[in-house]
Amino acid sequence: MQLIEGKKIAAQMKLELKTRVEAMKKRGIEPGLATILVGEDPASRVYVSNKIKACQELGIRSFHHPLPADLTEEEIIALIENLNADIRVSGILLQLPLPNKLSADRCVNRISPLKDIDSLHPFNIGKLCEAKSWNEILERQLFIPCTPYGVMILLDKYGIEVSGKNAVVIGRSNLGGKPVATLLLSRNATVTIAHSRTQDLPGVCRRADIIVAVIGKPRFVTKDFVKPGAVVIDVGINRTETGLCGDVDFDNVKDIAGWITPVPGGVGAMTITMLMNNTIMAASK
Amino acid sequence: MQLIEGKKIAAQMKLELKTRVEAMKKRGIEPGLATILVGEDPASRVYVSNKIKACQELGIRSFHHPLPADLTEEEIIALIENLNADIRVSGILLQLPLPNKLSADRCVNRISPLKDIDSLHPFNIGKLCEAKSWNEILERQLFIPCTPYGVMILLDKYGIEVSGKNAVVIGRSNLGGKPVATLLLSRNATVTIAHSRTQDLPGVCRRADIIVAVIGKPRFVTKDFVKPGAVVIDVGINRTETGLCGDVDFDNVKDIAGWITPVPGGVGAMTITMLMNNTIMAASK
Repeated sequence: MQLIEGKKIAAQMKLELKTRVEAMKKRGIEPGLATILVGEDPASRVYVSNKIKACQELGIRSFHHPLPADLTEEEIIALIENLNADIRVSGILLQLPLPNKLSADRCVNRISPLKDIDSLHPFNIGKLCEAKSWNEILERQLFIPCTPYGVMILLDKYGIEVSGKNAVVIGRSNLGGKPVATLLLSRNATVTIAHSRTQDLPGVCRRADIIVAVIGKPRFVTKDFVKPGAVVIDVGINRTETGLCGDVDFDNVKDIAGWITPVPGGVGAMTITMLMNNTIMAASK
Repeated sequence: MQLIEGKKIAAQMKLELKTRVEAMKKRGIEPGLATILVGEDPASRVYVSNKIKACQELGIRSFHHPLPADLTEEEIIALIENLNADIRVSGILLQLPLPNKLSADRCVNRISPLKDIDSLHPFNIGKLCEAKSWNEILERQLFIPCTPYGVMILLDKYGIEVSGKNAVVIGRSNLGGKPVATLLLSRNATVTIAHSRTQDLPGVCRRADIIVAVIGKPRFVTKDFVKPGAVVIDVGINRTETGLCGDVDFDNVKDIAGWITPVPGGVGAMTITMLMNNTIMAASK
């Protein structure tokens, strides 16, 4: 078994991105990330502060907008419109989830697709869907959702062939399984999307050369899901009584898998770096 | 083997739609379809004239705009903007392909997503992708591309269960395989997208309860692709020396399949009816 070390790759990428930001600044371009945090959700606060920290590390300007939970949708949209027009802001991050009464859809749809570094806007999702190949995605500088993007980078960095392979994605969420499937397809994998209604899920997964688990169920994927030598990518981050764990039962699977991502330190470690990457790309456009 | 008769279903649906249009007119709403045909491509002319004929049959107003092939993109976009603003026009159909020098993308992106009855606009593709279920797609009145929509209606009308079934879609085009896969997933199928890079394609297909062929290769799918009793949906329309044929070798497959669509008279017969359905939905919004 070989470990896919997201943490190490993310650290390398950050150094590269830092150099890129410095070069851009010399050409008079300064990437800037606006973050919007509505309400006081503790987990969301941590996520946003980690993103701001990453900006500081890389020399990206950040504009933080902490807003009270009782703000109206119209007020959030007014702020978004201001940020759309602000040339110092290359990317806008609206931290989700929003407090209950607010529609994430209606707010996200008002973010300019050119500044939608989380790739949440339907226009950007549609563009990604339509792309005919991974090269087209990169050449046209389409926004790729951060976590799925991190998965693809990890496969690349470890030289794992995707084209022609059978990939099974477990889960079909809009931020997880669906974009992962879209990207694997763009890399010419034969992609199966499995989910809670799939019959004989272990059997379906045992046909996979590459398994990507994005389900949010602690240690759900065990060795009876895994063909010997398969690549196992664990996108899950679950908080349990014994600490963080993934959707894959790492200890149970590690001896049968050919490659495996740990949790923490695997895919999750890539997400913020890919957000920085998207912000820098948005600035360079 | 049971035949899935698209032609028959389309005729029934047209009657229902005609009644719906009459009822709408009584409430003062008249659906209208604008068709834009650029250049003289004979096949495109036939397609557009069939769409106009269907409008006449159903009582839908049609506004045809035949344009010379040497028109500029700006001129086409100006027409599209006019049609976007025209309240008599509920749907805009830009017949593709466009003559070479014109960008279909740039033109399609200017069609109002509210009038995009072919569901070509990235915003609408993204909305469809994001929908969590078939019910959500219908309730939110999202635009569904016509041919994939026809596939789903045929499965419905013949009472074919999709949820929990293994579906293999052969082909990944933007108008064919990808939206078919999206819709089957919204109906809780376990969906595999196979294509030219798939290894052991017959073997992959033999696991399918439902096969949808959208590849554009005459009689490509033979009985070694088909599990006994499987549902075989043929989206292909290929012109050969011996006439029209599908992507499925009908005679070779018919005795092993449980259900099969013929070509012609199968999926293809549904497309224009679904376009009419989308136009009427756009008017009723």
